[in-house]
Amino acid sequence: MYNRISRTLFVIASLLTLVVASAHAFAASDPLPSWNDGAAKKSIVTFVAKVTEKGSADFVAPDERIATFDNDGTLWAEQPMYFQLLFALDRVKVLAPQHPEWKDKEPFASLLKGDVKGALAGGEPAIGEIVMTTHAGMTTDEFDKIVTDWVATARHPVTKRRYTEMVYQPMLELLAYLRANGFKTFIVSGGGIDFMRPWTEKVYGIPPDQVVGSSGKLKWDTRDGKPVLVKLPEINFIDDKAGKPVGIQQHIGERPIAAFGNSDGDQQMLEWTTAGGGARFALIVHHDDAKREWAYDRTSHIGTLDKAWDEAVAKGWTVVSMKDDWKTIYPPERK
Amino acid sequence: MYNRISRTLFVIASLLTLVVASAHAFAASDPLPSWNDGAAKKSIVTFVAKVTEKGSADFVAPDERIATFDNDGTLWAEQPMYFQLLFALDRVKVLAPQHPEWKDKEPFASLLKGDVKGALAGGEPAIGEIVMTTHAGMTTDEFDKIVTDWVATARHPVTKRRYTEMVYQPMLELLAYLRANGFKTFIVSGGGIDFMRPWTEKVYGIPPDQVVGSSGKLKWDTRDGKPVLVKLPEINFIDDKAGKPVGIQQHIGERPIAAFGNSDGDQQMLEWTTAGGGARFALIVHHDDAKREWAYDRTSHIGTLDKAWDEAVAKGWTVVSMKDDWKTIYPPERK
Repeated sequence: MYNRISRTLFVIASLLTLVVASAHAFAASDPLPSWNDGAAKKSIVTFVAKVTEKGSADFVAPDERIATFDNDGTLWAEQPMYFQLLFALDRVKVLAPQHPEWKDKEPFASLLKGDVKGALAGGEPAIGEIVMTTHAGMTTDEFDKIVTDWVATARHPVTKRRYTEMVYQPMLELLAYLRANGFKTFIVSGGGIDFMRPWTEKVYGIPPDQVVGSSGKLKWDTRDGKPVLVKLPEINFIDDKAGKPVGIQQHIGERPIAAFGNSDGDQQMLEWTTAGGGARFALIVHHDDAKREWAYDRTSHIGTLDKAWDEAVAKGWTVVSMKDDWKTIYPPERK
Repeated sequence: MYNRISRTLFVIASLLTLVVASAHAFAASDPLPSWNDGAAKKSIVTFVAKVTEKGSADFVAPDERIATFDNDGTLWAEQPMYFQLLFALDRVKVLAPQHPEWKDKEPFASLLKGDVKGALAGGEPAIGEIVMTTHAGMTTDEFDKIVTDWVATARHPVTKRRYTEMVYQPMLELLAYLRANGFKTFIVSGGGIDFMRPWTEKVYGIPPDQVVGSSGKLKWDTRDGKPVLVKLPEINFIDDKAGKPVGIQQHIGERPIAAFGNSDGDQQMLEWTTAGGGARFALIVHHDDAKREWAYDRTSHIGTLDKAWDEAVAKGWTVVSMKDDWKTIYPPERK
């Protein structure tokens, strides 16, 4: 008896929920309010509709709705240099008192005199030394705290905003829109995995296990009788260019059906995504808004968009103009 | 007007759903029916209650409810040898016609004569050669299909069951119970990640991106004008012993609050899990059921349980007796 009443009530409740949910969907406001109506927005909405509508020839089961996003230049800004490099420069200053020898040693000597250009003139070896010095030697828990403290307090040299407030509002809406449509959203970035994970859940709604990135090797050890993982100054994996499909396979183990990037470093990820069967979606953010953000593409050292742009045009991938397609760039600042 | 009616209907529907769901929960049957009432079952239920009850001093937010499971010997059987090795032996037979030179080359010569012991007498180098020969040289998509076909058809030499029907029914219930309580369940196995991912979602409800395992290196390449990832005969990562906490950090990026294993290969994963703050849970499956499964521990070559057992006893981790704690071992066979 209990069961029959319960089941009847349950069916009524479910039906009511369905009816109301459908009515809501019909009356719902725009899920992408910061996107201007145009070809880019339309291509997104059209793709999501066709892979989610039951009975659609392009329907994709929810557990295969994998979407991957580059981070630097796609979800947050990357000028005047990658934010992770700005973090590393800040760390050099903090660590300098423990390293008196840096006064006479490049790239640290130039850096500590405030000559960032001079320090980075040493190219990749110089940058490598700065990154390894600031990203290794501590435990994973210690590094997590260092990053958490930095993003809570550090300010961008140009906008004076917190770095996590230099994420793109239209992309936050896109992430939420895809998740509301059953997608699992991942970051696949050339940036350091340990540098992103402390804040991606709070800022993007992407939990640590859905972040793929470059990494250093780790060592299992014991400190004060407790097990720790120590970050070694040795590269484990570089998640960039052809490394992105490799990183996707190793971490996610499934080919995405949608991928989002902004530079030549994302080209192979977009190729890998669109080479799968069924409906596929690839999007490139073009930084063409010198007024509200930065304008750069083919000749930029950071976020070079050259070959991937040509391929996007040739293959009909969606190219987003920040200037024309986005109503706003950043979310409102927190108090 | 529409909105007010809609909102009212929605509230009614939501309330009804809540009421019915609560009634159902109250009347619900045992979520772990294949577990005998005893200390092991009680320790699981007690832990889950205290981390999920709002207001409990040990409450853990849902996004931090990470549980990691070893696979071989914890979720499915591993005797008379790891199933992945049985897969590799089957593959050698299938590939033999393309390799006439194997007739005179160990370990293949012995294997093809049916002398498995002789083939494995070569120890790790012999096993390494068998694994690399059968797990590399093809694309990731091709390997996925090979594994999918094998698990659909191959039968265990002793039980004559399909391998994916030699999973432990009590552990299937435990996985479902944890997920119903907001946990995210991961596999963290010494086995090959590409060997597990094709079937873990169907068999365990664990999607590919929540599988951590050992892996080979991958190479981005083009075949017939299409991008592919080729499996190279080169080790990328060994997810065993101290490699398990490293694999957890690299893939999941968060420390589990509960971990489940059966051998010394899981010891560091359980240490890493229990060394975190707040309520923690560690469990070891002890294979002591020679009648319904196999009985082995300290002196077994496969699934050695020696040091981890001592530590479990010393630290009060839960030790499951398959003989006493489990009503059944395997789920019913499919037709």
